[in-house]
Amino acid sequence: MTALMARHRPTLYKAIDACNKRYSWTAYPESPSSKIWGAKPPVAGKENFEAMLGSDYPLNQPGEVGRTGAEVSPYTGEPLDITYPKTDIDTLYEAIAVAMPAWRDANPETRLGICLEILDRCAGQLFENAHATMHTSGQSYIMAFAGSGANALDRGLEALAYAAKAMADVPATAQWERQFGKSGAARLDKKYRLMPRGVGVVICCATFPLWNGYPALCASLATGNPVVLKPHPAAILPVALLTTVARQVLEEEGFDPNLVSMVADTRDAPATMALLEHPMTAIVDFTGSPAFGEWIEQHCSDKLVYTETAGCNSVVIESCENLEAMAGAIAHSLCQASAQMCTSVQNIHVPAGGIRVGDGHASFDEVAAALVAAVDKHLHNPQVLCGTLVDEAILATIERYRGLAADHGQLLRDSGPLDYADFPGARTASPLMLEVTEAARDIYRDEIFGPVSFVIKGADAEACLRDATTNARERGAITSHVYSLDEAFLDRAEMAYHNAGASVACNLIGMPINFAAAYSDYHVSGLNPAGNACLADLAFVASRFRIVQSKRM
Amino acid sequence: MTALMARHRPTLYKAIDACNKRYSWTAYPESPSSKIWGAKPPVAGKENFEAMLGSDYPLNQPGEVGRTGAEVSPYTGEPLDITYPKTDIDTLYEAIAVAMPAWRDANPETRLGICLEILDRCAGQLFENAHATMHTSGQSYIMAFAGSGANALDRGLEALAYAAKAMADVPATAQWERQFGKSGAARLDKKYRLMPRGVGVVICCATFPLWNGYPALCASLATGNPVVLKPHPAAILPVALLTTVARQVLEEEGFDPNLVSMVADTRDAPATMALLEHPMTAIVDFTGSPAFGEWIEQHCSDKLVYTETAGCNSVVIESCENLEAMAGAIAHSLCQASAQMCTSVQNIHVPAGGIRVGDGHASFDEVAAALVAAVDKHLHNPQVLCGTLVDEAILATIERYRGLAADHGQLLRDSGPLDYADFPGARTASPLMLEVTEAARDIYRDEIFGPVSFVIKGADAEACLRDATTNARERGAITSHVYSLDEAFLDRAEMAYHNAGASVACNLIGMPINFAAAYSDYHVSGLNPAGNACLADLAFVASRFRIVQSKRM
Repeated sequence: MTALMARHRPTLYKAIDACNKRYSWTAYPESPSSKIWGAKPPVAGKENFEAMLGSDYPLNQPGEVGRTGAEVSPYTGEPLDITYPKTDIDTLYEAIAVAMPAWRDANPETRLGICLEILDRCAGQLFENAHATMHTSGQSYIMAFAGSGANALDRGLEALAYAAKAMADVPATAQWERQFGKSGAARLDKKYRLMPRGVGVVICCATFPLWNGYPALCASLATGNPVVLKPHPAAILPVALLTTVARQVLEEEGFDPNLVSMVADTRDAPATMALLEHPMTAIVDFTGSPAFGEWIEQHCSDKLVYTETAGCNSVVIESCENLEAMAGAIAHSLCQASAQMCTSVQNIHVPAGGIRVGDGHASFDEVAAALVAAVDKHLHNPQVLCGTLVDEAILATIERYRGLAADHGQLLRDSGPLDYADFPGARTASPLMLEVTEAARDIYRDEIFGPVSFVIKGADAEACLRDATTNARERGAITSHVYSLDEAFLDRAEMAYHNAGASVACNLIGMPINFAAAYSDYHVSGLNPAGNACLADLAFVASRFRIVQSKRM
Repeated sequence: MTALMARHRPTLYKAIDACNKRYSWTAYPESPSSKIWGAKPPVAGKENFEAMLGSDYPLNQPGEVGRTGAEVSPYTGEPLDITYPKTDIDTLYEAIAVAMPAWRDANPETRLGICLEILDRCAGQLFENAHATMHTSGQSYIMAFAGSGANALDRGLEALAYAAKAMADVPATAQWERQFGKSGAARLDKKYRLMPRGVGVVICCATFPLWNGYPALCASLATGNPVVLKPHPAAILPVALLTTVARQVLEEEGFDPNLVSMVADTRDAPATMALLEHPMTAIVDFTGSPAFGEWIEQHCSDKLVYTETAGCNSVVIESCENLEAMAGAIAHSLCQASAQMCTSVQNIHVPAGGIRVGDGHASFDEVAAALVAAVDKHLHNPQVLCGTLVDEAILATIERYRGLAADHGQLLRDSGPLDYADFPGARTASPLMLEVTEAARDIYRDEIFGPVSFVIKGADAEACLRDATTNARERGAITSHVYSLDEAFLDRAEMAYHNAGASVACNLIGMPINFAAAYSDYHVSGLNPAGNACLADLAFVASRFRIVQSKRM
């Protein structure tokens, strides 16, 4: 066993156990509190980030043919002025081809040990990553530290747990002996060897650059495939930090650092298609827009494709014990990360006749008002909860839906800028909330990226459920919620969402309902248009390698 | 636990253990000897088969719009005169849609128990199946009993073992509890549910109708997907027998028999495309020609596609201990099932300078002569070993390559009809063997279906290996063989074949070298053009279902 594997094996085994039993566990604390980390790392992380501003980020990759990068902080509106290598893809892939055989021939434990070390070192730069994520993806400091940091590292470890399980399913050797007819007897020594597929391209998204970055890298790299990371042009730095760590660890362990590389680009000169079209690319992991995800699923039929995109996540409200608590839980989803998460709620279905609340009743209008009030309440400290908007285009989106309100329903809550003491120029928007009926379903069935949501008046709870589950099936859903005091309704709702290919959470209050727990929540079902792959299950890793064997008499 | 699962669980557990350790084991004896089966079953099986001739095979499937079927026995040249339902696909699929929910909602153990029972009952009709396979696929009685019978049942059980493992990896429930910040605490009961993909279409081949029939049916059905079996128009009856058994068992266990159905057709009015194009079809298992397999891989990007096709399987001869024994082993592959197996050898690479044999030497011509002599020797009882030709077109293929001999090398051994006492009109051909050089590589790199092989003169053993492995990578290989007394050469050969995405067998003699052992040999690597799927590994089953979950506070 390698030294790295010996050091990290307890963590891997614990992760495997957690995946098998799906209890609550984390390997990477998600709080940036100095009580956990000590006083120095938070300060050092910020200093390290600031030192990178205005610099040429070094990667020493083959095929560098200039510099690229045009990141702008959503907090300051200022460019980061960091440049990254602009890459000639063919030259890079030639270098990757040289790197592949030694990695292919390394045993699974060696590869797993290196991946575990990469995650461990990334955990040591969570503060740098948090600032880098804030000033590219625009997330709040807390969310940047957790969502695209510690929580994503857990997903990476989870992917390694499944990779370890899938690879361990194939024994290294076997003895085989049998009689053929009267005369023939055969005694064979067999060896089984895991073979990688080829280059894994990981297309990261703008809002959570490493959410799929860590797990996809781990899944492909541990199973023997080199990885090319393709960051979104708006959020390169977090991916560059991972790339550096991975290359360092590989080199220290005697492998070619080109087994992990990054191809940065700008919106004006995109590089993604060249990666997708390269014949050595065998695996594509994609997180981003449904439109591009679907395109990749349809057009990369000669590659393994794993997508996570987005849908129109819904809430169905049938009844509740405490209106304020429920509204607070839902409103949290509308506010958190300015509803730019793949788990953010968009469509809130409420019966026209209102709902039972404990022993009483609340009218439709009272429910809507409670939701608006809960959003307002969450906005008392918006910088921590909402962060900023990753993309200027979201402001135009909000403008467009504001304009649709009068014709298709009414404005329940207007969106406006948020006031951040630390960053007066931050690009922000509070939630825009529209009240509509099912007549507006062509509008609310689209995935709308950003803080736009709908309170949808349905005929009754069953109609609400029918609409929400139909939309999940046809337009995608990553999370779905139901609130009801009626066990029979909850059972029907579970069945309806499941049969629509969607998971569902019931009566969540007092916790961030957007939260998806690594090792416990299967994230993305793969049965509806919001993606074809799950973080993480056996299917996420089992096809990334193949088996060849030899037998000798 | 269901009664079926209780009855068959020891078999399933043994199969799982065999897959994990990959020793020699079988659940289904491959010999048709009455010493194993008793005197009655062989006789009854033949009588049952004969009673089906000239009849309307009953399936009682929805959507029957007439009768179809035009099977002709390669042994007698006579039509079987059996008709099967001609099916309106939309009507059938509507019935399948009705059948799906109960099967989806059945627990994995219930589904596994039913699949185990289906295999067990099919084992009870191996004699009927053997005669049906003889008189459609044209195999010998022995091979029909084993290759598309008992051995294929083992592959079906193997697929169930992997399906059981993959499904068991997902727990049914979990308790999850954690603190969020200072105030929020969450305690969730989680349920995980396996969801099928949709209809699995299984396209069976003409030569071994149930080789992929049993495993693909088991893999899809056990994981909750209904199955539509699509037999080759030349070999419908064996698939019909399986269909009947599956429908009976399902119905007895209270499920809708339409969970398994068969769509028969003729060459003139093929039905395959309608199945592939149906939106409910989510999974395609294909065994057949490389051309159609590749077409399906490229054009069914919205479906899961598992293919096993064919390549140009090779032998590289570097040296050997006993020329006659080696030649006998290779010649067996050229003769067995008239080289219509996916594991049949086509290209035999021999160094121009000859080879070391024990302490002596054999020239190229002596090696070639030994191979020809060994073939002739195997033909002393051809009916048992060779069987017949499944397709008239193979005779034209032989004619074509005979014509190419003079221009591209020389005829080592001409093909001619074989003499079968029991069936004087049988469609047969003995092996055609050509001697060529690498100048003829455009010819021998094609997959040639039927008893045509090449003894290829290479510059030296390294050149032979280079040519063979290049062809495996570029044109596909399911089996590859090397004969050498030099351990270093064997190591190099293993590495070269593996890096070409091919498995390899070394120095096999005294056993049928075409044999691939269920539970031990991973059949098809998925890394070269001879197919993308393996019988069987976790990847063969892990994606056939997805996971949805519910969580309740």
